[in-house]
Amino acid sequence: MRAEILSIGTELLLGQIVDTNAVFISQRLAELGISVYYRDTVGDNPARLEETLRLAKSRADIIICSGGLGPTEDDITSAVISRVFDAPLEIFEEARASLEQFFKHRGKTLTANQLKQAMLPHGSTMAPNSVGTAPGFMLTKDGKIVITMPGPPLEMTTMWEKTIGPYLRRISGETIYSRTLRFCGIGEGALEQELKELIDVQRDVTIAPYAKLGEVHIRLTTRAKDEEEAQRLITPVEESIRQRVGRYLYGINDETLEEVVGNMLRKAGVTLAVAESCTGGLLGGRITNIAGSSDYFLGGVISYSNSLKERLLGVAATTLATHGAVSTQTACEMADGVVKATGANIGVSITGIAGPGGGTEEKPVGLVYMGITVNGHPARAYQYNIPGNREMIRLRAVQEALVLLRDTLTNTEVTYW
Amino acid sequence: MRAEILSIGTELLLGQIVDTNAVFISQRLAELGISVYYRDTVGDNPARLEETLRLAKSRADIIICSGGLGPTEDDITSAVISRVFDAPLEIFEEARASLEQFFKHRGKTLTANQLKQAMLPHGSTMAPNSVGTAPGFMLTKDGKIVITMPGPPLEMTTMWEKTIGPYLRRISGETIYSRTLRFCGIGEGALEQELKELIDVQRDVTIAPYAKLGEVHIRLTTRAKDEEEAQRLITPVEESIRQRVGRYLYGINDETLEEVVGNMLRKAGVTLAVAESCTGGLLGGRITNIAGSSDYFLGGVISYSNSLKERLLGVAATTLATHGAVSTQTACEMADGVVKATGANIGVSITGIAGPGGGTEEKPVGLVYMGITVNGHPARAYQYNIPGNREMIRLRAVQEALVLLRDTLTNTEVTYW
Repeated sequence: MRAEILSIGTELLLGQIVDTNAVFISQRLAELGISVYYRDTVGDNPARLEETLRLAKSRADIIICSGGLGPTEDDITSAVISRVFDAPLEIFEEARASLEQFFKHRGKTLTANQLKQAMLPHGSTMAPNSVGTAPGFMLTKDGKIVITMPGPPLEMTTMWEKTIGPYLRRISGETIYSRTLRFCGIGEGALEQELKELIDVQRDVTIAPYAKLGEVHIRLTTRAKDEEEAQRLITPVEESIRQRVGRYLYGINDETLEEVVGNMLRKAGVTLAVAESCTGGLLGGRITNIAGSSDYFLGGVISYSNSLKERLLGVAATTLATHGAVSTQTACEMADGVVKATGANIGVSITGIAGPGGGTEEKPVGLVYMGITVNGHPARAYQYNIPGNREMIRLRAVQEALVLLRDTLTNTEVTYW
Repeated sequence: MRAEILSIGTELLLGQIVDTNAVFISQRLAELGISVYYRDTVGDNPARLEETLRLAKSRADIIICSGGLGPTEDDITSAVISRVFDAPLEIFEEARASLEQFFKHRGKTLTANQLKQAMLPHGSTMAPNSVGTAPGFMLTKDGKIVITMPGPPLEMTTMWEKTIGPYLRRISGETIYSRTLRFCGIGEGALEQELKELIDVQRDVTIAPYAKLGEVHIRLTTRAKDEEEAQRLITPVEESIRQRVGRYLYGINDETLEEVVGNMLRKAGVTLAVAESCTGGLLGGRITNIAGSSDYFLGGVISYSNSLKERLLGVAATTLATHGAVSTQTACEMADGVVKATGANIGVSITGIAGPGGGTEEKPVGLVYMGITVNGHPARAYQYNIPGNREMIRLRAVQEALVLLRDTLTNTEVTYW
């Protein structure tokens, strides 16, 4: 079965809003194994919407529209569908009752404008809107299915979860299942190289790598009748991948690196503190994305200025004068210093040149040092040369610090525990 | 002139990435006064891309494509354009030289696959790619203009700013000019109410409010022959707005709140330090988004745990025991403490309950206290009740801290200077 997605609204064509609805619908259709060949975006213009709808009707089995269902003159979706599918608009009593209920609940009366939303094409099935006024509908006619939902994302996604998704699941039968393997500490090219044999012979299960910021995801996808069959197909492929590159695999599906590192810290029963210079607090910010991170994260010091590197972390003035703030030595003293100041088991430091200014030939923009110390052992430092602009360098440095933490917590050669 | 936007890539149809390119291009075209009637999204499929291109060619003057220019088999955009516009692909020497340079610089040699990116339709003008490998191009043929850019957002936006935007500006004549006024400390509803008279009578200049995270933007837009005429139209409207709500206006166009606050600190010649609990470093991270923030930002303490609130900030154990970590008293002691520890002129603290756990009836999730102390005066604390999930509460708290800083630095009643 093929679906075509229609996003309706002039504000989309003006770039005033991002079309997150289309992303949501695309993802859900992929999960259901329904192919999408085209996605169309049109404004609130009846002639152009009609042209697009007729085109979609000619090449897809299912047309999924969002937007243009409200009470104003601009809201034309139902009227145009009514014309294209030759199904006159009529008042749906259930829709009227629910609208009346909505306004009564708010101490208002239903106006003629608002009542327009209760008019659906003859033969439709109404899709209730539990978080707004405009109902959606599903209409099967001329061998095609047209589905319409309101534009506000909360209304659309709620309607999908409650009515549209279950309806499509019933009619689609076979479903696509997927599982995402998340890797860090290895680049996309190297990972693809390691998995080349597997990728070249992929059959029932597709193996698709995606590069993300400082990490790579591999999505395993298969078509199957049910969860059990999907597992049976995906598991051996995943095993083969783990055999080759398992040591870089840090998480599955939605697990984030800060979550995985956090769980490792909790399991090891150790605490962490950070000393941040060029990242200015972003590493602490990311670690505390995780609810419950207070189990292992004490906090730390944002030593953006040299004075705070000395004052709060005890970095020696001679170190800063001799080696500079961006150096192996300073990174080590920062890591040691934050452990001393906080009493944490592990200290991680970041110091670097995020740019755009401040770089030299010897120490260019993107040069970053990180220090790490574990259970009282003297800190070690690592050097990174990170490409990109200021924002990328800072975000990537935070990512590398988490990778360094994971490696340190994983590495059995480090007999610190 | 009418443009049609084509986004090319199967990952878009699968919902794996959000089409931010389309939003960027739509916004830029709106600014140039070029109408967009349709936006199409297709996968990496030659037949379907060709069908879509032919349709776009039949109804638009300018076709703007992004995606599908890379070195792999899936990258088909140039070949399909070549076919639809009957313009054979040929090696562009300038493109080849720049590719060779790119690979040489990285110690690699140019492969045949990579060389494919130097093949552009006959008669095209190359658009250089200064941050990646695949060049774009502009081709004028059959009375139409087709423009092609790479899919990675950084490459696309850079190419737009350097080549495509200036090219379209030259050919478009009348242009839409806009100016964004950025407000903080006032909600969208209240701002619209204050400006109702102006919004109701808007004519040549449209006044459109947009709610953002903890701030509101008002976009003034007008069609004009040139910059001068645009200024003449927009200035009086802006003046009327300033008369009504000028005290909430913090910035113009792309100015960010952290940038404006940073400039105020620099101008006042004072230094800032932060003490963060529930935000875990995000405030420091945001302040240091700005290159040159070391002029006024010393750093601070991430006191996520109570132990660090005591150890690094000197918050009294009795304060934590009596009033709790999330309280007026703790917020004040954190702000005073970070000034004492760092020697900064201004100290700001944030302590709150970001959730989802940890809330009580008395102190619910979203309760946040901020303390601020200026030039040795005892800290004052402010209470916030922030709606939303953990992520929203943390981001909004950072925003409110910046608003508090701006208010403190603006307020002439505060005779601290």
